[in-house]
Amino acid sequence: MISSAFAATPALMPLPVTVRPATGKLTLDATFKAALVSAPDARLDAAIGRFVVRLSRQTGIPMLGLKEATPKLRIECARPGSDYPTLGEDESYTLDVTPEGALLKAPTRAGALHGLETFAQLVTLTQDGFVVPSVHIEDNPRFPWRGLMMDSARHWMPLEVVKRNLDAMAAVKLNVFHWHLSEDQGFRVESKRFPMLHQEGSDGLFYTQDDIRGVVAYARDRGIRVVPEFDIPGHTQAWLVGYPELGTNPGPYEIGRKWGVYENVLDPSREETYAFLDAFFEEMTALFPDPYFHIGGDEVVAKQWNASARVQAFAKQNNLKDAHAIQAYFNQRVQKLLTRRGKILIGWDEVLHPDLPKDIVVQSWRGQKSLADAATQGYRGILSFGYYLDHLSTAAFHYAVDPLSGDADRLAPAEKARILGGEMCMWAEYTTSEMVDSRIWPRAAAVAERLWSPAATRDVDSMYARMEAVSRGLEWTGVQHRANYAPMLERMTGGRPTEPLRVLADAVEGLGLGPRARAGKYTSLTPMNRLADAARPESESVRALELAAAKVVADPKGSPTEAALLRREFARWAANDARFQELAAESPLLMELKPLSRDLAALGDAGLKLLDALEKGQPPAAAFVAGQTKEITRMEKPAAELNLAATRPVKLLLKAGK
Amino acid sequence: MISSAFAATPALMPLPVTVRPATGKLTLDATFKAALVSAPDARLDAAIGRFVVRLSRQTGIPMLGLKEATPKLRIECARPGSDYPTLGEDESYTLDVTPEGALLKAPTRAGALHGLETFAQLVTLTQDGFVVPSVHIEDNPRFPWRGLMMDSARHWMPLEVVKRNLDAMAAVKLNVFHWHLSEDQGFRVESKRFPMLHQEGSDGLFYTQDDIRGVVAYARDRGIRVVPEFDIPGHTQAWLVGYPELGTNPGPYEIGRKWGVYENVLDPSREETYAFLDAFFEEMTALFPDPYFHIGGDEVVAKQWNASARVQAFAKQNNLKDAHAIQAYFNQRVQKLLTRRGKILIGWDEVLHPDLPKDIVVQSWRGQKSLADAATQGYRGILSFGYYLDHLSTAAFHYAVDPLSGDADRLAPAEKARILGGEMCMWAEYTTSEMVDSRIWPRAAAVAERLWSPAATRDVDSMYARMEAVSRGLEWTGVQHRANYAPMLERMTGGRPTEPLRVLADAVEGLGLGPRARAGKYTSLTPMNRLADAARPESESVRALELAAAKVVADPKGSPTEAALLRREFARWAANDARFQELAAESPLLMELKPLSRDLAALGDAGLKLLDALEKGQPPAAAFVAGQTKEITRMEKPAAELNLAATRPVKLLLKAGK
Repeated sequence: MISSAFAATPALMPLPVTVRPATGKLTLDATFKAALVSAPDARLDAAIGRFVVRLSRQTGIPMLGLKEATPKLRIECARPGSDYPTLGEDESYTLDVTPEGALLKAPTRAGALHGLETFAQLVTLTQDGFVVPSVHIEDNPRFPWRGLMMDSARHWMPLEVVKRNLDAMAAVKLNVFHWHLSEDQGFRVESKRFPMLHQEGSDGLFYTQDDIRGVVAYARDRGIRVVPEFDIPGHTQAWLVGYPELGTNPGPYEIGRKWGVYENVLDPSREETYAFLDAFFEEMTALFPDPYFHIGGDEVVAKQWNASARVQAFAKQNNLKDAHAIQAYFNQRVQKLLTRRGKILIGWDEVLHPDLPKDIVVQSWRGQKSLADAATQGYRGILSFGYYLDHLSTAAFHYAVDPLSGDADRLAPAEKARILGGEMCMWAEYTTSEMVDSRIWPRAAAVAERLWSPAATRDVDSMYARMEAVSRGLEWTGVQHRANYAPMLERMTGGRPTEPLRVLADAVEGLGLGPRARAGKYTSLTPMNRLADAARPESESVRALELAAAKVVADPKGSPTEAALLRREFARWAANDARFQELAAESPLLMELKPLSRDLAALGDAGLKLLDALEKGQPPAAAFVAGQTKEITRMEKPAAELNLAATRPVKLLLKAGK
Repeated sequence: MISSAFAATPALMPLPVTVRPATGKLTLDATFKAALVSAPDARLDAAIGRFVVRLSRQTGIPMLGLKEATPKLRIECARPGSDYPTLGEDESYTLDVTPEGALLKAPTRAGALHGLETFAQLVTLTQDGFVVPSVHIEDNPRFPWRGLMMDSARHWMPLEVVKRNLDAMAAVKLNVFHWHLSEDQGFRVESKRFPMLHQEGSDGLFYTQDDIRGVVAYARDRGIRVVPEFDIPGHTQAWLVGYPELGTNPGPYEIGRKWGVYENVLDPSREETYAFLDAFFEEMTALFPDPYFHIGGDEVVAKQWNASARVQAFAKQNNLKDAHAIQAYFNQRVQKLLTRRGKILIGWDEVLHPDLPKDIVVQSWRGQKSLADAATQGYRGILSFGYYLDHLSTAAFHYAVDPLSGDADRLAPAEKARILGGEMCMWAEYTTSEMVDSRIWPRAAAVAERLWSPAATRDVDSMYARMEAVSRGLEWTGVQHRANYAPMLERMTGGRPTEPLRVLADAVEGLGLGPRARAGKYTSLTPMNRLADAARPESESVRALELAAAKVVADPKGSPTEAALLRREFARWAANDARFQELAAESPLLMELKPLSRDLAALGDAGLKLLDALEKGQPPAAAFVAGQTKEITRMEKPAAELNLAATRPVKLLLKAGK
């Protein structure tokens, strides 16, 4: 570990390739200035300006760029690099910090941007105030495609949500924003050519073309490519509201309100469909400068095609034996339309078909096998399987997923080279703009590290320790993953003091897509104001208790700090229920949580007893252990679409008692 | 009180003139829709759209404006009113809510906007979910000028800070945003005519003219007038950096970094000064459509004028006997320049001089007497004395200040009518954009009530109860008065868990301008990252403890809930110090707080003993009471620029024990 060499530990994430701590530190004060010392570059200057503003917020030190001050951070950029970020460009940088000043060197603007983020993460509060420890860093990414997909279609994501997440992405060196812009539940971009798309398909919630251009520029300035996705031929019900003639069935259509896969699909047999798409692509490809253009292509239900005499006749005529072949035909046509506009098609793994040219890119959501298969067949690919943030899995789970592991292991080097990286998916069935940040951050930082840092960087404890620190640091980018928690809890109590709810909320974890979909009661009109919506995917405080419990179990007498922490929390849980029940009596949104609160109190009581036993060195009574084990097993079943994470530390103590 | 008639209490602030609760309630769900049913008005439609979005956030219920749904809130606006909000226009409205739907009627757009805010405040969480209780409301303001002044000059206030505060202002029916745009420490508006003003006088932190137009439109759409202030002839050092020839002394000048009153003033004796101002006003009056234009005019130091042979010769020649007369001459010239552009001069009370025409408006910051004097002399005025938010006084203090009380009491009705209302002042020496919201809100809501509601609305307990609820509600407008607290505390602990700091922070209150100025160590380059910067002006939790202590004292046996609350908090304080000291050992920003934390623990211990004594009905020992009284007296002296508010509830118990 690098951190031990520093007096205080800067939390770097993604961990750089080489970190060589040195003696001393650079102190930050109001004379701090950062300046580009190589050829002028207005865009980089603006980025440096934003960086200093953020540094100023991060430290509370005014940094006005005083004329009389000498720059403490000098930035040398060999060449600006491409005007728009490019897949595979040199993103490396070196950073040297000494007590006298810091020097950031990068061959391109992309590398310089990454280096600024590393500098910001190095800032540490010590007895001497805010400092950056002396260090030599060399760094460059492992994969060139490090992305986050955001679904702005199922639940609407206002512009500021997109922008603040771009800032946070840049902070952890992600470089692709994959923007899912159309769905059965909404078409989200203004089309001047086909205005019924957004007028009829969006409930009025869409990005204007100026908005789009603004986001593209905003992302570009932060070193992030924007890859738009318009999902076809399935997932298109919202298109069909305004243009029913595009559908295989005649319509009329309404905006989808339910979640799940819809049967409505575009009609691949009519030339008018391709003419429409041709004109549509003409308009949309002009909005997005990135060479990659995502056409979705997932979850196409064959039913309507199979039932349509017209489509079947067309299939026969074109020698297309089944729906998959029909879709391949459709994709080939679409691919040609995109190629004519200089775009490279990217699609979900269903688009993979030998009839498609080798320059398309496959995004694997169904497994690592399809990615490996694609690479074997000569296609480039990116991994999303294992990076579905909406499943609300642990950071450790995502962190363990490596684009080059699993089925990719068996690939030859040339095939492996076709695996460009990965993309996290933030699908929005169970996420509104209010809690989307908390579903992305901080877990996305762990995946960002997987995609940037050397493959050997895999220590989970180190990852968590740094991720939790980075999570706090991300707040200075403006992302709301922590800030929106308290207001959501306050809403649930109708403005009454939330402390008893907060104690419970910190001890539970929200369930992801699977179980929520199985609950079967959600549509886009369902209120998202329950604890299941506010609770974090992973409880930081319970994790701290698990670590403490493991230490206490390993060394009951030698872990007084950990024992004190456990005791304090267990006592808090035990005492919380009476106050919670009082609060819950007043609010219908808390009603469903009453049993959870009682269980939490029981866990607190049990935890205290187990601690007593451990400290006395007397194993607890067998009947007590058996009873508690049964109770915990019961509590491990989700309730109110929540996991009672608090079971975990108590279970650790209980196992030790057996 | 109106609230008792409602099943649950909606917190209305400002309290409407007439509130008649009725039976039943209107339930809010995903079919909720609001619609203008009178003549089309795009601006009001946009406001209704924003209102529904906010309602949706407030409740967590998606409100997509479904086509098939009937509007549950109908808005009838007799006439749009003026395009830009006008002083004295009819701002009244009536609102009727029944289980079937609500009807908002207003003669103008201004009234309709106010009515929407009242509707939003009526939303209450009950056992039946989010509802609006049935009610009949008639409402209109007491004063036509209800303002907030924001100082964007001393510390820079980014555009989003201004905008979010405009949203919050609208939520409590304030209608004037007085924007203090130039100071010794900064000139904050782009001038195309005199670009050295912003280029040399702002450290690069200024509003572009597009920004200004954007803010004016943003405010206008929310029913808020924007009155710009360019303070002359004093407070102008930042102007002189780029244009030293405007100064009485030759210069050169630098941007002011210290606080306090500077000696540098414009030269009133040179025609070039007036030519400059003429061209300057031409440019700036075109940016701000409001008929009122604020020229500051406060704190003009006579020293340079007295020392300048040129100014003295000029004074003699024009028969100006002293500096005040010179300033009156200057103001007359300025007033003519403004009149020519259709603007009415407004200035701080120093501008009052019989040579000035009666249409100017005087803003009284020095006392209620100068306001009354102005009214007697035929001038219109607004009160700011007593509304200085940067003093960090209590809401109760500000609430008690009435523009028509004090010296205004003795005025004849026609003179009283010249008192247009009031304006809060948010000076920014000791406030950055990070904590400015918390210095404005929620206390500004209490002043908003003073300026809107009938004079007889003065129950302080009711005010506090409603203000605290409104404070939570204001979060849905986007204002950050609560959200920025946690990150500021986290910065102080270097990312370590903040709980022990939070316990202390909740028990203290920040000091205002006076004591901080007397500390004598601040400049615009001083870090604002201490607890004195993060702590609230008024502790909500301590207030709750004071109320509880008063009840327990009045009825020791009959107040078990209150006693339990006190016991819990006192125990928390007592137990907090050990953890706090541990945390403080790691952070230089916590060092100065160590004695405060020890005092807080001592207060907790004393509080617990006093509670015991009260509950047993045995008065505490005299020596104990004497010792504690002495200790509390000591603790009442500020430390680390903080008041230990926690003394107050303990003092109440102690007094009872005497």
